[in-house]
Amino acid sequence: MTDVAVVGASGYIGGELLRLLLGHPRVRLSAATSTRYAGRRLDSVHPNLRDQTDLTFSEPERLADHDVVFLAASRTAAMALVPRLLDRAKCLVDLSPDFRLRDPDTYADHYGTPHTAPELLDRFVPGLPESHRTDLASADAVSVPGCMATAAILALRPLVPLAAPGALVTVDGRIGSSGSGVGATQVNLHAERSGVMRLFAPAGHRHEAEITQTTGLAVRMSATGVEAVRGAQVVCRVPLARPCREAELRRRYLDCYRDEPFVRVVAQRRGLYRLPEPKILTGSNFCDVGFAVDDRTGAVVAVAALDNLVKGGAGNAVQCLNIRMGWPESTGLGFAGLHPI
Amino acid sequence: MTDVAVVGASGYIGGELLRLLLGHPRVRLSAATSTRYAGRRLDSVHPNLRDQTDLTFSEPERLADHDVVFLAASRTAAMALVPRLLDRAKCLVDLSPDFRLRDPDTYADHYGTPHTAPELLDRFVPGLPESHRTDLASADAVSVPGCMATAAILALRPLVPLAAPGALVTVDGRIGSSGSGVGATQVNLHAERSGVMRLFAPAGHRHEAEITQTTGLAVRMSATGVEAVRGAQVVCRVPLARPCREAELRRRYLDCYRDEPFVRVVAQRRGLYRLPEPKILTGSNFCDVGFAVDDRTGAVVAVAALDNLVKGGAGNAVQCLNIRMGWPESTGLGFAGLHPI
Amino acid sequence: MTDVAVVGASGYIGGELLRLLLGHPRVRLSAATSTRYAGRRLDSVHPNLRDQTDLTFSEPERLADHDVVFLAASRTAAMALVPRLLDRAKCLVDLSPDFRLRDPDTYADHYGTPHTAPELLDRFVPGLPESHRTDLASADAVSVPGCMATAAILALRPLVPLAAPGALVTVDGRIGSSGSGVGATQVNLHAERSGVMRLFAPAGHRHEAEITQTTGLAVRMSATGVEAVRGAQVVCRVPLARPCREAELRRRYLDCYRDEPFVRVVAQRRGLYRLPEPKILTGSNFCDVGFAVDDRTGAVVAVAALDNLVKGGAGNAVQCLNIRMGWPESTGLGFAGLHPI
Amino acid sequence: MTDVAVVGASGYIGGELLRLLLGHPRVRLSAATSTRYAGRRLDSVHPNLRDQTDLTFSEPERLADHDVVFLAASRTAAMALVPRLLDRAKCLVDLSPDFRLRDPDTYADHYGTPHTAPELLDRFVPGLPESHRTDLASADAVSVPGCMATAAILALRPLVPLAAPGALVTVDGRIGSSGSGVGATQVNLHAERSGVMRLFAPAGHRHEAEITQTTGLAVRMSATGVEAVRGAQVVCRVPLARPCREAELRRRYLDCYRDEPFVRVVAQRRGLYRLPEPKILTGSNFCDVGFAVDDRTGAVVAVAALDNLVKGGAGNAVQCLNIRMGWPESTGLGFAGLHPI
Repeated sequence: MTDVAVVGASGYIGGELLRLLLGHPRVRLSAATSTRYAGRRLDSVHPNLRDQTDLTFSEPERLADHDVVFLAASRTAAMALVPRLLDRAKCLVDLSPDFRLRDPDTYADHYGTPHTAPELLDRFVPGLPESHRTDLASADAVSVPGCMATAAILALRPLVPLAAPGALVTVDGRIGSSGSGVGATQVNLHAERSGVMRLFAPAGHRHEAEITQTTGLAVRMSATGVEAVRGAQVVCRVPLARPCREAELRRRYLDCYRDEPFVRVVAQRRGLYRLPEPKILTGSNFCDVGFAVDDRTGAVVAVAALDNLVKGGAGNAVQCLNIRMGWPESTGLGFAGLHPI
Repeated sequence: MTDVAVVGASGYIGGELLRLLLGHPRVRLSAATSTRYAGRRLDSVHPNLRDQTDLTFSEPERLADHDVVFLAASRTAAMALVPRLLDRAKCLVDLSPDFRLRDPDTYADHYGTPHTAPELLDRFVPGLPESHRTDLASADAVSVPGCMATAAILALRPLVPLAAPGALVTVDGRIGSSGSGVGATQVNLHAERSGVMRLFAPAGHRHEAEITQTTGLAVRMSATGVEAVRGAQVVCRVPLARPCREAELRRRYLDCYRDEPFVRVVAQRRGLYRLPEPKILTGSNFCDVGFAVDDRTGAVVAVAALDNLVKGGAGNAVQCLNIRMGWPESTGLGFAGLHPI
Repeated sequence: MTDVAVVGASGYIGGELLRLLLGHPRVRLSAATSTRYAGRRLDSVHPNLRDQTDLTFSEPERLADHDVVFLAASRTAAMALVPRLLDRAKCLVDLSPDFRLRDPDTYADHYGTPHTAPELLDRFVPGLPESHRTDLASADAVSVPGCMATAAILALRPLVPLAAPGALVTVDGRIGSSGSGVGATQVNLHAERSGVMRLFAPAGHRHEAEITQTTGLAVRMSATGVEAVRGAQVVCRVPLARPCREAELRRRYLDCYRDEPFVRVVAQRRGLYRLPEPKILTGSNFCDVGFAVDDRTGAVVAVAALDNLVKGGAGNAVQCLNIRMGWPESTGLGFAGLHPI
Repeated sequence: MTDVAVVGASGYIGGELLRLLLGHPRVRLSAATSTRYAGRRLDSVHPNLRDQTDLTFSEPERLADHDVVFLAASRTAAMALVPRLLDRAKCLVDLSPDFRLRDPDTYADHYGTPHTAPELLDRFVPGLPESHRTDLASADAVSVPGCMATAAILALRPLVPLAAPGALVTVDGRIGSSGSGVGATQVNLHAERSGVMRLFAPAGHRHEAEITQTTGLAVRMSATGVEAVRGAQVVCRVPLARPCREAELRRRYLDCYRDEPFVRVVAQRRGLYRLPEPKILTGSNFCDVGFAVDDRTGAVVAVAALDNLVKGGAGNAVQCLNIRMGWPESTGLGFAGLHPI
């Protein structure tokens, strides 16, 4: 059994890591830290863990050595913790935004604060199996991308060779309330958040830097909070260099993802679920990707959906762990989602 | 024009008072206080007031004299403010729980803290037009009942003469998230509160003291938070002294509420809305009441629904204002609700 | 009192017309037709009308003459009814898509069926007060635009003189379930529709023809069903001919809508409601419009929100009625929306 | 591998059976019938099965012999199919209401139609592992109880020896929209069903006969549809023969369910999830049970929550299968639920 710990385990991404790691057949979860809840049972914060574990939260300062440490801290907190944690684990998997961008200036530009550990940026391999599987197999530090970035990258990848050079790709993200975390602030109040179509980022959403870094496309991203707890969807508009027929696009998507265990191509002509729909992915590690051709302009509308806490975070991290350890990639990630829900 | 002020105007009941008073043709809203938001525009907190007013929140300490003052403070805060406010207004309408129970011991028993102004309890007339219309016409201090208490009292009133003496009446309340106020605590987080059936009071909900005080019935009350922002419903089970046929019950309900402008009897045999449903009352001052006979036991199931912020609070307060001023009782309360919603 | 009738009164737009007309001080609603529900009370279908009327649905074939007839029929059904109804009313207000597009070929192109009354298209004035107020004052036939078309046109209008000539404007619509009507089909089942982000039109949504017709812009429109019953929002991306600063844009928006009773400019830097949010407009006739500048590209993101059944349908129709009759434009449309909701 | 088939596989219970059986390591799903969708892929109706199977629906008439057949038909349809299906399978698991009540007169009384196969009633073992585990181990016909009946029985079982003889137990059920099935009728329309507190059974809900049959208690049951797709909760009020302290009750609950793999006792003093909450059970086979003492009356409020499609249907059926086959009882039922959701 591989010994793992979760630092920052009381948040939503942290809790999802706990759920997946407790159900993982090759892993022993031996520590879960939380400054605020130290000493309390994990299931006092995450009630879905009742009967799954008797573990209690521990102080992050007391973290022992572990084979793998998952870090689910907020932005800037992660930067401060990583130097120390790199010594505590053979492999560190960070789920914060702090080590996603290779260039510290881009980080400062998008997040408004300077990077305090720029010398460590090179050590991190992007935690996206679909684009970095080989590097992940031997990585000692992994940085899992943002949930909407993952969705957008997977939606756009098959189109990268087709995109009109220099043309602007627009990405429109929609996301549930768990994406803004466990903070009890007015932004997350049920009476305010319920039923919204809250365009919290009309342009320039931070994830666009990650999307550009991975795809090379010029991207502008907007994002809207909609009524959901889990779930994220991106709708991307991609001008092509030359007209493409649907059959060719379909072949490209299928070729790109044929061997991927967690990417499904969903692009049907009919049906309630003909394009990627997040709700049926709740709890699963799938990212569904699809597309439609805009007949009048020739542009492609590329779509992706995922559970922001799973393939958009904790599940993706576990998939990276499986690759790193040489285990079957789907280990512990078998839940396929529900219908109806 | 009658000059009115709202103290505690940044909360949800306070905001609803602002909405109704700004739309009231015989009232001039001249002050709305909030310690936290003093100096900011009302519509910065209540976006539905955009274009309805340019007023800003003022410090509660600076409150001038007004014809009528509405107090929408939290429990215990109201007790502390009332002695001073009684001098500031010809009529004070309190929407907190602090002056609802006539007996200070009952208050201490249900709320766990002693009453600090017991000598003032007698000055308050219960703000329930259906039971205290005459007294309200000359009241200088009004205490508006709790939202689920109002619903339960109106559901039960026609049955009081029929109830089996000494028998226990059970009241089961269901309520949306606005009922727990504007506080940004974990209990109100969207990701936690969304889609719940949260039995927050399995027995002994505080409103039962009010229901007993008004109806004389022995009541036990449970309450569950369900997915909704606005809306409250009570389902009461009433053992009768003798069997009653549906026709007799219907006649009693109709007789009881025939002349009431804001109580409708809804007790049909069929249809999606055959019994009181809160959602179609959103924004309206109606309390719908209905009943069904349990054929096997002879008990009556009495039901009521209302918008907890309107007939369950601010609307009821405005209805009391109308009575107090001798205006047509529906003035400013004309909105009848939406379908679908 | 002006005598009015609603044809097709059992649907959601029809029901909303009933609600508004019953509350309108200068109107007498004397007929509401429904083939399916003829003989039944209006409130058996629209429970929010309880105590508002004792009227029953009548057969559409028996419609008498009325001052104004509102037609809330489905597409193609409206085309078939209009020739006859034009003789029954001094003014006919159609809320279907059938008379929105001036060019029958564009209609056939977008809706897939030929227009059967092309000779009547010229008689209809677009029911959009903000762009056709003068013509509406004397119109005998009015065609109310689609809900998302109205939102998009109002969001885009101030930008028309600034838009880069020939550049593509993208419009992304999001809409609640009432937008797909009262039909009990699988698409509308609660268990399927709940919590969706259903991209039902990835490109080429039908409303784009209306938007182009009114604004002259080249538009591509996508649309997503999200979790809501009422409410529509559009997010438009507009490339400009030259860079514009926020202050100039704000001035243009304010100038454009200063005198409009039902358009509010909402474009703040902060706050949960800093850009147009449909939920606080539920039941109201406001269309909130706003914008943000994409600093990197110079494009403008224009946003609008409305209640699809009110300003996106029935309320807009009543506003047209008020103009046609020379009444104050806000008559009967005073409800300003709720917060929280 | 055990060969299984699902008859009536296009509904919500049927789809949930497919999901669980496809993920079950000891089962081969070889047929799924649907008259309406025969010839179409399973994932065309149940999109969560994409990549899980290439199976298509088959005609029910063509059903071959199987080791186990699950029948997910509607009421009365099941009665008509069972005689034939009993010959097709070594074990038949029926999820309809038709074989739940042992007495055909009680069936006729509660369902309003006579039972057409009363001679078969004795062959069915109730599909409730917690009360019939021994019989299930050799059963050839199993009848899975109703979702709210299962919840109520599990909530009440520890109290049966304590209940006041002859006293009435009230059961109040709350349930999501998937409980009324996949029928596209107005009752299930999103715009009508969204956000409801629909008291569809004020008294006399059909499940009360099952509860009485299993517990021996005199039960009256009401039920309300609330906003949720999945999830059911029951709140039961039980008068006791003598006062009981909380510690004794807790011991009884724990004793009763200590060895049960899918019943958890949840009865805490504090916390958002201190009593059973359905939403965190979505997709899981747990039934959480809890209780609270009403200090003033001595009655116990017993509560249970479950996913109506899993422990309330398909999951319970698979648990019965595991018992029948002598497999570990949790096989294929490992999903423990999500938080937040």
